[in-house]
Amino acid sequence: MNRQQLVAAIRQKKSVLCVGLDTSPEKLPEHLQGLPDGVLRFNKAIIDATRDYAVAYKINTAFYEAQGLHGWSALQETLAYLPSDVFSIADAKRGDIGNTADQYAKTFFETYPFHSVTVAPYMGEDSVRPFLNHKGHWAIVLGLTSNKGSQDFQMLRCGEQFLFEEVLRKVATWGSPEQLMFVIGATQDAQLRRVRELLPEHFLLIPGIGAQGGDLHAVCKSALNQDAGILVNVSRGIIYAGHGADFATCARDAAAAYQQQMSVYL
Amino acid sequence: MNRQQLVAAIRQKKSVLCVGLDTSPEKLPEHLQGLPDGVLRFNKAIIDATRDYAVAYKINTAFYEAQGLHGWSALQETLAYLPSDVFSIADAKRGDIGNTADQYAKTFFETYPFHSVTVAPYMGEDSVRPFLNHKGHWAIVLGLTSNKGSQDFQMLRCGEQFLFEEVLRKVATWGSPEQLMFVIGATQDAQLRRVRELLPEHFLLIPGIGAQGGDLHAVCKSALNQDAGILVNVSRGIIYAGHGADFATCARDAAAAYQQQMSVYL
Repeated sequence: MNRQQLVAAIRQKKSVLCVGLDTSPEKLPEHLQGLPDGVLRFNKAIIDATRDYAVAYKINTAFYEAQGLHGWSALQETLAYLPSDVFSIADAKRGDIGNTADQYAKTFFETYPFHSVTVAPYMGEDSVRPFLNHKGHWAIVLGLTSNKGSQDFQMLRCGEQFLFEEVLRKVATWGSPEQLMFVIGATQDAQLRRVRELLPEHFLLIPGIGAQGGDLHAVCKSALNQDAGILVNVSRGIIYAGHGADFATCARDAAAAYQQQMSVYL
Repeated sequence: MNRQQLVAAIRQKKSVLCVGLDTSPEKLPEHLQGLPDGVLRFNKAIIDATRDYAVAYKINTAFYEAQGLHGWSALQETLAYLPSDVFSIADAKRGDIGNTADQYAKTFFETYPFHSVTVAPYMGEDSVRPFLNHKGHWAIVLGLTSNKGSQDFQMLRCGEQFLFEEVLRKVATWGSPEQLMFVIGATQDAQLRRVRELLPEHFLLIPGIGAQGGDLHAVCKSALNQDAGILVNVSRGIIYAGHGADFATCARDAAAAYQQQMSVYL
């Protein structure tokens, strides 16, 4: 899915909502617990319930990897079940030397045909470039994350700026805003405004709303650009909005509420 | 495998050799090309041929992930085939917020029972700590890598020091040398000596020998400590030492030659 198609989907749905499918087998509602296809049935119900309100789905690979082959099958079938008009993100945070990064790009653009994958920047240009060599796909590089640990290194002073600013500045020279996004946590509003100054054009993938405490209105005010330019991810706040047999209805209501708040700004 | 056992294996084999199983289906010798169990047969033959000379094996997960379910099966069976007296490393370079890092720790310590996993530091303490909460297992955190891209961020000046030095200094406060190692590339000898000053006790996993141009003698002189304290990884230089039906013999000869060079220092 290219930028034009993504922007069109955002305009049509009046939404920048990304639903994060961080699905744990232990957290399934009781009637799906222990079923061999429990995770897949849960994900399908969540997708059906939220697809009118979401423009993107982010599959957090860790939750599937931890289940071994069975998990990877659920990931593959969940990806295949996504509607054709939504943007798909493999939240895998891979990063390694060139010949290995080639293999990761193959994994998440070919073996599992996602539109995009999240990438860690610590190893530098040759760890990111293989993802940019796949035309029509996106690399979403970690900039400033939403967790407490973001203070440890991302907020280090490196000369006149923070490390994460140098990461954004340098990585942005490696590809265009048609193929490169950045992860910027919602929990640090002052920094979000700073990022938008540095990168007026790029799409930002913004986690941290909901369970992690970020404020949606502040995010919209600080980070929207002419093409919308943001995807706001909510994981636990939607998929675990309910815990019973009505989990999908609860997820739908939560997604609709987020979409309604977003629509005011779009 | 704990530190004492690892050190005992090093003393017994007079080796700090780690064999990197970065096995590509396309690079298999002709007689294994296209076989459904080609990668596994190749890995088993490499392990059989090198186990007298190696104290550790590093499975680069990217090469298996790119093959989908079939690849994960080969990874699992390769891991199960490793002799009980060698140290196993999942070279996965994972790194994510706490609840996700928990899942990755489960993946590589339980679902696939490796002794250790490589971890990326960019997201800070809560992305590393879940790996340290698994007693008897190791986190091997990226410090200074062997690739060209290591210059982009790891060698940035942050105050009085390089970023990678701050990473080593800070991460080392999160766990003991009994559960924490660091990846330090062999291609930057001056930095390797600096790392040994900063971290006199820790084990270092040192890639970059062979295909990437690092010098084994310089590494041994700069980085060995009283417990040896290093694992030197060679991937392509051993597994692709030969390309024909005699690939395992070629791998054995290459591993034996590395071990012989190492034995002088041990």
